[in-house]
Amino acid sequence: MAQRIVIDLFDRAEELDVVGPWEVLSYWTQKFPEDGWTVDMMSDDGQPRTCAKGLLLGATAARADCGTPAVVVEPGGIGSRTRLADEEHLEWLRAAHRSGAIMTSVCTGALVYAAAGLLTNRPATTHHAAFPELTAQDPTVRHQPSSRWVDDGDVITAAGVSAGIDMALHLVGRLASPERAAEVQKGIEYYPAPPIAAS
Amino acid sequence: MAQRIVIDLFDRAEELDVVGPWEVLSYWTQKFPEDGWTVDMMSDDGQPRTCAKGLLLGATAARADCGTPAVVVEPGGIGSRTRLADEEHLEWLRAAHRSGAIMTSVCTGALVYAAAGLLTNRPATTHHAAFPELTAQDPTVRHQPSSRWVDDGDVITAAGVSAGIDMALHLVGRLASPERAAEVQKGIEYYPAPPIAAS
Repeated sequence: MAQRIVIDLFDRAEELDVVGPWEVLSYWTQKFPEDGWTVDMMSDDGQPRTCAKGLLLGATAARADCGTPAVVVEPGGIGSRTRLADEEHLEWLRAAHRSGAIMTSVCTGALVYAAAGLLTNRPATTHHAAFPELTAQDPTVRHQPSSRWVDDGDVITAAGVSAGIDMALHLVGRLASPERAAEVQKGIEYYPAPPIAAS
Repeated sequence: MAQRIVIDLFDRAEELDVVGPWEVLSYWTQKFPEDGWTVDMMSDDGQPRTCAKGLLLGATAARADCGTPAVVVEPGGIGSRTRLADEEHLEWLRAAHRSGAIMTSVCTGALVYAAAGLLTNRPATTHHAAFPELTAQDPTVRHQPSSRWVDDGDVITAAGVSAGIDMALHLVGRLASPERAAEVQKGIEYYPAPPIAAS
């Protein structure tokens, strides 16, 4: 049976935080089913959610349908500040982690993991503007501000918004192979060339 | 009154083709309303659509509500092969172009523009695997396979899937300023670092 990746969809999640990993992981799992993975967009009740910039996204599953995931993706966005106070969700995250899931986050999804106690004494990253909030959640987190993503084994955190694409490709490389990740990268033509230099 | 950008949402559009530009353009227009632009996710009837990898996306407007857009974004995805045979949509695209809209595309959205006759004798790009289809639609198109996007003035075409992010940042730079594009780039932390070398 295929191993399950779930992306947590919640109110006011940032659109690209959610859809960047969705694109990478769905491209992989749908084009290469022989690798034995599936991806679900999970909301608590299986209903759609309105994201931070106003786009409605549908879920493919409710939490109750998701069993024990092998990988969790926690996106960020302004709504993560509500998500991190949702004790039922935090307990679900802790249970997934205890059962062996690889816990991944994008952007301020790291704040939710910190609130769940998953980042204690760990290296991690988040959106550059959210480092103070991360420290407020858990002062033992060791910021890695220059990393696009931080792979600490059972927990992987990515930097802001678009960094979820890079992190998801890393995840494909880890779960399948670097060659597979390169095939996915080619499929979504991810050879980025931003028009503006980093500032 | 704000000038309107519309992103065309259709059945089986590729998720990141749609949401990459949405993120860049919505971040810009919502954070900097003083620039005088708005973005709509437009479907023919204003109803949601199911994208190529199975994700439901909502529309913010129906075509009839969109008046005369200043910019059109035509995403790609497997559904573009249906879209390019939709004469009502092609006529809407031609009318938008005649009225002065900047016509932009991502990935196989270029096939739809070619079908509408918008790429005749122009330099353009599309997904690397779709060049033969582009030629089949219009043999006069001059492929630019090494370009991340091609700005030909009133028509801008981007390469595959993730290239829509780069193109949208270029568009912000053109419609507002390079400094504004840099602010958006920083907001979505788009300093990409793919884990796998280009192949």
